[in-house]
Amino acid sequence: MTSRHVTLPAGFRAAGVACGIKGSGNPDVAIVAADRDAAAAMVTTRNQVVGAPVIRNRRVLPKGYGRVRAIVINAGNANVCTGKAGLRDADAMAARTARLLGTDPDKVLVASTGIIGHRLEMGKVGRGIAAAVDELGTRNDSAALRAIMTTDTREKSAVVQTLIDRKPVTVAGMAKGSGMIAPSMATMISVITTDVAIRPSALRKALAEAVAVSFNAVTVDSDTSTSDTVVVLASGLAGNTALTARSGGYRKFAATLKEVCVELARQIAADGEGATKVIEIAVRGARNDAEAEIAAKAVANSPLVKCAVHGCDPNWGRIVAALGKSAAKIDPDALRVKIGRTTVFSRGGPRPFDAKKVSKYLAADSVLVTCDLGLGRGVFTALTCDLSREYITINADYHT
Amino acid sequence: MTSRHVTLPAGFRAAGVACGIKGSGNPDVAIVAADRDAAAAMVTTRNQVVGAPVIRNRRVLPKGYGRVRAIVINAGNANVCTGKAGLRDADAMAARTARLLGTDPDKVLVASTGIIGHRLEMGKVGRGIAAAVDELGTRNDSAALRAIMTTDTREKSAVVQTLIDRKPVTVAGMAKGSGMIAPSMATMISVITTDVAIRPSALRKALAEAVAVSFNAVTVDSDTSTSDTVVVLASGLAGNTALTARSGGYRKFAATLKEVCVELARQIAADGEGATKVIEIAVRGARNDAEAEIAAKAVANSPLVKCAVHGCDPNWGRIVAALGKSAAKIDPDALRVKIGRTTVFSRGGPRPFDAKKVSKYLAADSVLVTCDLGLGRGVFTALTCDLSREYITINADYHT
Repeated sequence: MTSRHVTLPAGFRAAGVACGIKGSGNPDVAIVAADRDAAAAMVTTRNQVVGAPVIRNRRVLPKGYGRVRAIVINAGNANVCTGKAGLRDADAMAARTARLLGTDPDKVLVASTGIIGHRLEMGKVGRGIAAAVDELGTRNDSAALRAIMTTDTREKSAVVQTLIDRKPVTVAGMAKGSGMIAPSMATMISVITTDVAIRPSALRKALAEAVAVSFNAVTVDSDTSTSDTVVVLASGLAGNTALTARSGGYRKFAATLKEVCVELARQIAADGEGATKVIEIAVRGARNDAEAEIAAKAVANSPLVKCAVHGCDPNWGRIVAALGKSAAKIDPDALRVKIGRTTVFSRGGPRPFDAKKVSKYLAADSVLVTCDLGLGRGVFTALTCDLSREYITINADYHT
Repeated sequence: MTSRHVTLPAGFRAAGVACGIKGSGNPDVAIVAADRDAAAAMVTTRNQVVGAPVIRNRRVLPKGYGRVRAIVINAGNANVCTGKAGLRDADAMAARTARLLGTDPDKVLVASTGIIGHRLEMGKVGRGIAAAVDELGTRNDSAALRAIMTTDTREKSAVVQTLIDRKPVTVAGMAKGSGMIAPSMATMISVITTDVAIRPSALRKALAEAVAVSFNAVTVDSDTSTSDTVVVLASGLAGNTALTARSGGYRKFAATLKEVCVELARQIAADGEGATKVIEIAVRGARNDAEAEIAAKAVANSPLVKCAVHGCDPNWGRIVAALGKSAAKIDPDALRVKIGRTTVFSRGGPRPFDAKKVSKYLAADSVLVTCDLGLGRGVFTALTCDLSREYITINADYHT
């Protein structure tokens, strides 16, 4: 986590203000704006029920990429299940932001997170947008980030730099999300900025690849939000020759973007509701990558595995059973399971191991479970967190 | 729950004894025996990792039906991931039981539940089997049932009577299970007896139909055990003409068997680890039954929905989001969600409702959520329980 992030790449400003949607008085409206139209790419939730902002953004960017000036985000109210009136509200948020920035409504993306089924209080939102535009500066990253947080307990951001055409390129991102986080992204919103010069279509390709192994690899509770949105904006000010998907520098940029997304995804897993640690489930040796993903997520979503890790119990049986119930092909005799560096299961049965030592390993902030299915070359790593009493407290005591 | 069950149909005896596998000194070996070979049918886990008893039973009844004299069950050790030695142990359990009952080893089924990865202590088991055969009587149902329990807090049994060919027919069953898996402790095992006369193949068909809407409709934690086994034995002593799948009485018998299985499944959900209530998720209006099942289980497995019900929160948003993330087709505008009798969502948005009243409804022992997808005629009802802090306590503080 860094205090500056989305405004570090050249050509971006950010702001976050409180307009009163959150009862707490905390910031709840954020804007990240490019000085000029930026190349933009977007990936949204796979849930079939989607919020008005997602519906609107898909209309504005039907192919998931284009050119965009800004994104405006509110927290406290997700503007989901609000019908045609909700769509008009999302349009109005974009229109107001566009007018104040001197651009077209179709150049502004919208995202909302919070309770669902309630209309936005558009008076408050409108005043918030005006205040945020007034505040737009290059050092307001932290306020912008706090304004998109809901049940998050920590600010989540990442910055990675690289060289493309010998020009320094920065990729920076902020994210929110800590529950309803699942295979198809999360109750998660992330805004990523970069100064690289890149074609929008190539940016979308790089984002889709990065999301597959980062935000789509995180699962806190197997639930998927109606509002998940990841947006990347590229100002082009780094001075490199504009990348296409076939450029020499493309893979380097894509790897850098992936690094930022994976880091943000890890921070989301670490801040999963009630989480005390991140659990990485690395599956290899699957018949193919798709089966590796299915197997890794079966383990990552198993409440019994998550409880066992919470209790520092090296319960290989629950891991093996979770693999076995998945739709991925498993052969117990070919399977090897490691907790950290310790093999706990191979050749169809448990291996003798020092339970105290492995239990101590499981007490760390971040633990790795490796499952080699021994059947092929498919790999996938899922990220999750442990399941604690606190998760229940957060989600049972919350009221609609 | 009734104190007599599996010995109520004519032609069966049962026993349960303590042989010392469970450290507690509680009963841990059960036998349910028919006086003569009975028609038998079996359904076992879909997990790809299966215990030695399941492997053995599948060899004995490769088509899932045949003629069987008895089933011998132990708790405390599941005999899973124990390799060829474990298979020999399962065979030895059957052989010893068969010898003492004066029948063939292939006429005895075996089931085990408890910790996995450890060899059975066959000396204890052998003595237990001998003691159980000595105890075989007609009023030991409760001892037999207690002998198959692990983390269960309640005895689970059901009895239903009907008339077939004007003859009274009894179907009775006992079950154990409270975490869907727990390679450590928990697994679903059920033994059902009946005096109906029926062909084994027809009995298998009726059992498969019943399991689909009962045991396979229950989900406590989405995890599936390596040892799940349901066996039904039919003595034929009711005096009806032996049923085939085309007999007039077949549907009546199948409905009765289904009723017993659904009742046992409800008791399993009610005793789910940490559960304070049963949640029934009835999906109708899906494009087909398969999609209805997918949708119902997506809601039933959602930790956020289960936490909300635990907290008596009428959180329709989590229900709608869980439906939307499922692979079943959902159209929010066609969807109607009811909690009890109260419509909370329709036509794409929430309906005004008395939150206090619905919250009070959710405080009951048993609650119903109905989701009409409005797209077709597919129906499925899933059974689950709420998710409480106690689930975490049971599953995090337990040690391998």
